[in-house]
Amino acid sequence: MDFIDSIKKTKEDSFILASLPEEIRNDALERMTKALQANKEAIFEANARDLELAKEAGLPAPIVNRLVFDSHKMKSCIDGIYDLIDMEDPLFQDLLKRELDTDLILTKTTCPIGVIGVIFESRPDALVQIAALCIKSGNCSILKGGSEAKNTNRILFDTIYQAATEAGLPEGFAVLIEDRASIDELLKCHDYVDLLIPRGSNQFVQYIMNNSKIPVMGHADGICHIYVDGAATIEKAVPIIIDSKTQYVAACNTVETLLVHKDIADVLIPALADASGSKIQYRGDVRCSMVIDCDPAEEKDFQTEYLDYILSIKVVDDIDEAIHHINTYGSHHTDCIITEDADSAAKFMALVDSAGVYQNCSTRFADGFRYGFGAEVGISTGKLHARGPVGLDGLVTYKYKLVGDGQIVADYASGKSSFHFRDL
Amino acid sequence: MDFIDSIKKTKEDSFILASLPEEIRNDALERMTKALQANKEAIFEANARDLELAKEAGLPAPIVNRLVFDSHKMKSCIDGIYDLIDMEDPLFQDLLKRELDTDLILTKTTCPIGVIGVIFESRPDALVQIAALCIKSGNCSILKGGSEAKNTNRILFDTIYQAATEAGLPEGFAVLIEDRASIDELLKCHDYVDLLIPRGSNQFVQYIMNNSKIPVMGHADGICHIYVDGAATIEKAVPIIIDSKTQYVAACNTVETLLVHKDIADVLIPALADASGSKIQYRGDVRCSMVIDCDPAEEKDFQTEYLDYILSIKVVDDIDEAIHHINTYGSHHTDCIITEDADSAAKFMALVDSAGVYQNCSTRFADGFRYGFGAEVGISTGKLHARGPVGLDGLVTYKYKLVGDGQIVADYASGKSSFHFRDL
Repeated sequence: MDFIDSIKKTKEDSFILASLPEEIRNDALERMTKALQANKEAIFEANARDLELAKEAGLPAPIVNRLVFDSHKMKSCIDGIYDLIDMEDPLFQDLLKRELDTDLILTKTTCPIGVIGVIFESRPDALVQIAALCIKSGNCSILKGGSEAKNTNRILFDTIYQAATEAGLPEGFAVLIEDRASIDELLKCHDYVDLLIPRGSNQFVQYIMNNSKIPVMGHADGICHIYVDGAATIEKAVPIIIDSKTQYVAACNTVETLLVHKDIADVLIPALADASGSKIQYRGDVRCSMVIDCDPAEEKDFQTEYLDYILSIKVVDDIDEAIHHINTYGSHHTDCIITEDADSAAKFMALVDSAGVYQNCSTRFADGFRYGFGAEVGISTGKLHARGPVGLDGLVTYKYKLVGDGQIVADYASGKSSFHFRDL
Repeated sequence: MDFIDSIKKTKEDSFILASLPEEIRNDALERMTKALQANKEAIFEANARDLELAKEAGLPAPIVNRLVFDSHKMKSCIDGIYDLIDMEDPLFQDLLKRELDTDLILTKTTCPIGVIGVIFESRPDALVQIAALCIKSGNCSILKGGSEAKNTNRILFDTIYQAATEAGLPEGFAVLIEDRASIDELLKCHDYVDLLIPRGSNQFVQYIMNNSKIPVMGHADGICHIYVDGAATIEKAVPIIIDSKTQYVAACNTVETLLVHKDIADVLIPALADASGSKIQYRGDVRCSMVIDCDPAEEKDFQTEYLDYILSIKVVDDIDEAIHHINTYGSHHTDCIITEDADSAAKFMALVDSAGVYQNCSTRFADGFRYGFGAEVGISTGKLHARGPVGLDGLVTYKYKLVGDGQIVADYASGKSSFHFRDL
């Protein structure tokens, strides 16, 4: 079966998967945990081969680290699947049930999106998490992982594939893509694929967005801001900024630009610089450079996702300038105000046009697990469908079912019949 | 102010409109009704000019009819606005409120999408309805109506614009586009426009979808099906089919293809042909042509939205063939099964991948008003965000607000703190 045929088969099977009851989907998830457990030695061996190849190829240590699939990762994968099993079924939920007229009942019911292509980074545990989220939500998945994890991904996929089909999932419920060239083929499959979720570099996500008619959910940039208001508490502000910048510097929810109210700049900025020591390199505007030694921040700094221990700083006259800066330069991901003033916080949270608007806490909280969603397939900076961390909710849509007994519209147009709209 | 400047201004003002309380938005709507009433003579005069020009230009009677804005249309516009005023505010609704940890509260709150470009057909009452829906949902709107209604649209826009700004809406809350060239400029404004809703011909909607990075909500085709199952009641089937085809032949929810189970074909098809007389022209497959005189249906007939008194007919072996045909040739709009068999109906409704799946009623019910949504901005055949008739619900998104008291992620990573996820 060539690539396009396998995608067509996936589309066909998506209708079957969409109609399976929760018990079968949960049984598939449960069998997956057992199969992973039973196959663990072979999985760890495959992972050892990937790690060896990665080291031979001289891949950087952080990438090699993310490749590791050990008993700790195995346990967290299995725990994650059990969390999913325990979650309420996202399908077949009635969002609305309305009697339009006697014996004419409208129901708005959740259903899967259909076929979802997910292109993810080097962590092999992502494959298990994403496949499990798609099964729980009744979606067929087309999975493309990092090529560095090729051996691990293959055995993980084979393991869960066999377990899930034994539970009764249709053959096309999941497809593993192993070569980069197939991604370009996938991008053309708008007749068969309903949604793409690319995770990876800005450049890669932009490429996907610009080269497919398939809707894309995700984010290219993560240019997050913290605005320290005049009414901020320095003792809260400094640790929050350091955590937001350094707790995991390569994440999309890491802060890239600090905006500081002019009334507090000469206290906050030196205190921050003192506390962070040499760990963070600062790039400041003119007013910032008057209170600490720093490199000059240029226009392009405010448009840059550093993914590094660099923070740009701008001193602003007031909250309006901060909000305007964020809405202009931000990526609508996650932005935070540090303030004790409730009115300023409310204004900031109403006017900043981002998926996450925070007060007095780290931007690093922007994450499906930390929101209690169990797991996430990604974080969306788009405004349609799902926004922010996307869990099961973002993987379903709905359809309207209308059940009648012979009703025709002509009777309502003529006045012979009329709607009475009664929610049931 | 040139076009792009006015769009930028709209974007800026969208943040202000997003933060206005319901009372101001409802006051704007109420003032609009009064202003329309007060200005009605001038509006009717402008409409008379459009009608005169349309007749001089020799426009077809159905288009001229749709142009009419008389006291009847005025009343339905005003009634529609009052319905909207009475509806629950779609904004500032908490969809989730969760304590992640002590003093760390996550709220998922509805908010407007931002700036919405709506390109609509010749009916001038559409301008009032769409502007009102956008105001109620806190969205700025960029409105482009049919050029045939230019004079009517201009005075309607000026009337509601003045009333709404007097109520306190920001100047950029709405923009009227009057020339076709500006549409192409609009399509490039992905930095300022969050959503496009094109209403019009298949070709036009496809053009919009293919020429903009802005997300598009709507439908190009409306190829709707009725499948008459073996267990159908002929007395229900025939009127439903005739209504679905002829009640308003140019609508997107009009049936284009009839699928008939082989066991009932020789009774149903002649009964339908008898009842419809010469009103409907049939194009049938070989098995259909064995029971009635009809033109032959070719492959392309099953891919065609006739928007005319033409119905293609195919006789199928079973429900699976019908479902497969619909999922292959349909436009995922609205499809109906006629059957008295509950299992067949359930199967059809689960497996047909359309925004609306019906049993025993006319496809013409697929409409926001008939669903009790008050009004609709369009019907979406996409699966993301809104599906089917799109009312106020489809014009909002949400943001996550997280309010803390200095919490940092490092403490949760180290185990010093932990989440307890308690829904409030």
